[in-house]
Amino acid sequence: MATKKSSSSPKPKTGVLLYADTDRSADALYFGQVSVPDAFIAFSDGKKRCAIVSALEFNRVRHHSAFDEVLSLETELKRAPKGKSSLDRLAAIVRNQAKERGITTFRVAADFPAGLAFALRSARVGLEIADGLLFPEREFKTDEEAAHIRRANEAAAAGFRAVMKTLREAKIGPGGKLLLGKNALTSEKLHEIISIACLEKGAIAGQPIAAGGDQACDPHHRGSGPLRANELIIVDIFPRDRATGYHGDMTRTFLKGRASEAQRALVATVFEAQQAALRAHKARTSGMKIYKDVVALFKKHGYETKTENGLSTGFFHGLGHGLGLEVHEPPRVNAKGSGLRAGQVITVEPGLYYTGLGGCRIEDVVRVTNDSPEMLSTYPYKWEIR
Amino acid sequence: MATKKSSSSPKPKTGVLLYADTDRSADALYFGQVSVPDAFIAFSDGKKRCAIVSALEFNRVRHHSAFDEVLSLETELKRAPKGKSSLDRLAAIVRNQAKERGITTFRVAADFPAGLAFALRSARVGLEIADGLLFPEREFKTDEEAAHIRRANEAAAAGFRAVMKTLREAKIGPGGKLLLGKNALTSEKLHEIISIACLEKGAIAGQPIAAGGDQACDPHHRGSGPLRANELIIVDIFPRDRATGYHGDMTRTFLKGRASEAQRALVATVFEAQQAALRAHKARTSGMKIYKDVVALFKKHGYETKTENGLSTGFFHGLGHGLGLEVHEPPRVNAKGSGLRAGQVITVEPGLYYTGLGGCRIEDVVRVTNDSPEMLSTYPYKWEIR
Repeated sequence: MATKKSSSSPKPKTGVLLYADTDRSADALYFGQVSVPDAFIAFSDGKKRCAIVSALEFNRVRHHSAFDEVLSLETELKRAPKGKSSLDRLAAIVRNQAKERGITTFRVAADFPAGLAFALRSARVGLEIADGLLFPEREFKTDEEAAHIRRANEAAAAGFRAVMKTLREAKIGPGGKLLLGKNALTSEKLHEIISIACLEKGAIAGQPIAAGGDQACDPHHRGSGPLRANELIIVDIFPRDRATGYHGDMTRTFLKGRASEAQRALVATVFEAQQAALRAHKARTSGMKIYKDVVALFKKHGYETKTENGLSTGFFHGLGHGLGLEVHEPPRVNAKGSGLRAGQVITVEPGLYYTGLGGCRIEDVVRVTNDSPEMLSTYPYKWEIR
Repeated sequence: MATKKSSSSPKPKTGVLLYADTDRSADALYFGQVSVPDAFIAFSDGKKRCAIVSALEFNRVRHHSAFDEVLSLETELKRAPKGKSSLDRLAAIVRNQAKERGITTFRVAADFPAGLAFALRSARVGLEIADGLLFPEREFKTDEEAAHIRRANEAAAAGFRAVMKTLREAKIGPGGKLLLGKNALTSEKLHEIISIACLEKGAIAGQPIAAGGDQACDPHHRGSGPLRANELIIVDIFPRDRATGYHGDMTRTFLKGRASEAQRALVATVFEAQQAALRAHKARTSGMKIYKDVVALFKKHGYETKTENGLSTGFFHGLGHGLGLEVHEPPRVNAKGSGLRAGQVITVEPGLYYTGLGGCRIEDVVRVTNDSPEMLSTYPYKWEIR
């Protein structure tokens, strides 16, 4: 009886639900393959992909997206109860769709908006939070996606070329400040130069890092103010390809003038660690082991990692992260990293930071294969510019 | 007795809680006044602002932010139960802080991540979703914020100047295609030209619109492919000032060649509506009335708004929206708009769209005062370029 009953009742169906704009949500862009600048409802019943969008977007999304079905928000709102809050009305729209399509539960990403999530629970729409990525396949890049990332890295490389050219042209002024013509060469000027170079390659640089001296010892300091001779300058460029939304992410460290022996040793050590780590990226290798080998190599060369009074020095960030429609996405390669898998696109970016001496980070991007890693970034490592 | 008991027990304290990065969350940037590219915990107990950040950010956030207290994520994680999911461990960190500071409930924004919200509820941390903006004061701009927006609009104006110059230089090639030198002048080329002009003014253009002909009848179509003579080209630029994060938002409509009488009438009508609506923006005036006056003026000139088979023509978007750290923020000026209030910064952007004829939108930005609106954008309205 029980068997018969369960086979005659409708099978519980799990869908996927998003409420996000495609500028901020990589999932929404991945799912819909179209740009929508305001948050909209998108879902699947396991087969069809559906979007509910306003008149502002309707025609464009209907013709230029991966959605199989596009509904009008204005029409759907007419079927939602009046006089309720806008979140409750959105929840009613989702509930209507779930009922009509027999969807019992929606899987949502951890960053699904809580306001709508609570309204959906009140409306008795089943929700479950995805463990990890909403679309796990986002972690494994196709050849096409790898090509987009390579293209974005070509924009990053154009940024480095422009920085090199600028540092070559720069003169060393009084007190060691770098001059470009009559003006101080600042971090902000390099941000602009990098951004223009990326634009000419069809990519948006966003907020690149060009930080010198002790500023660079805070790895997320973008850099500000005049740059100086004989100081390490970390340049980290992570442009977004305008046409596809995929990111590049590369870092080089430069120095204008003459490096000290300590600076040369620092850069040589980071370079040695980075090249070894690059080669180690293979399917089934443990990310944790690659990370720990870098730590061990640094230690062997006398570079310790410490935290005193909240200030960390040495190597105190992860070795790498997944790269795709987001700059930071799974997997992470760090002290807890698990086994690598073919198709993952990962940055490899060891760094060492010591106040007074300065910081050095070198970063490239690989796609993991069963054999040697596929390099998705290319730019020379020359760094000392006279 | 009851009175006595309640007066001797600690007063329930409501805090504010965020878990977001400052690139995507305007609230996080507004609250912390510092850029943090990965999601982090930030909260207040009603007085002090606190952040919990990783070693990667710690030193920088401690020295360059609006936070009164900065805690180390690594240290706080040591106090969270091992072996749980990362969301449960984050929730435990927040619960520890709430207990120690006597915070009974946290107000969170509607876009607070649901994964952490559910974990917090499981950990019995009180949450309430803010009705509207998490920080309602974000809607009313100070003189300093208005200056940032004006600056971002100067970048938008530089974009229009560059577009004008390009259209002046462009030649009309075979079949009416616009040529720049030997190449077709495309929407993508204008995106690049606009973005470079904005960068030179310290702003990131992001994804500007430069759409011609029927493409422009989808108001969020960015434009793609060759542009043509004698067609209306909508150019909508909403750059973000790099130093402050505030946005500009302006639109002009251009035409290279010779406009038809119908095109001239369309542009003149939108211009008349826009100028009248601009003047009408005053404190205590109903946004709904300003919107309806625009609709009535369009109707008087014979421009109807319709939706047939999902395709809308005429004036089918709002008249304006708040502008600040987000391109679209409260208030909205549309068929449901409420009374305007001094300090609101609002776009004024009527538009008309008819397939075959093309689209026209003209957009400026005002700050509402008790008297005449304060213009935060300036650029001429010349549009026909021979």
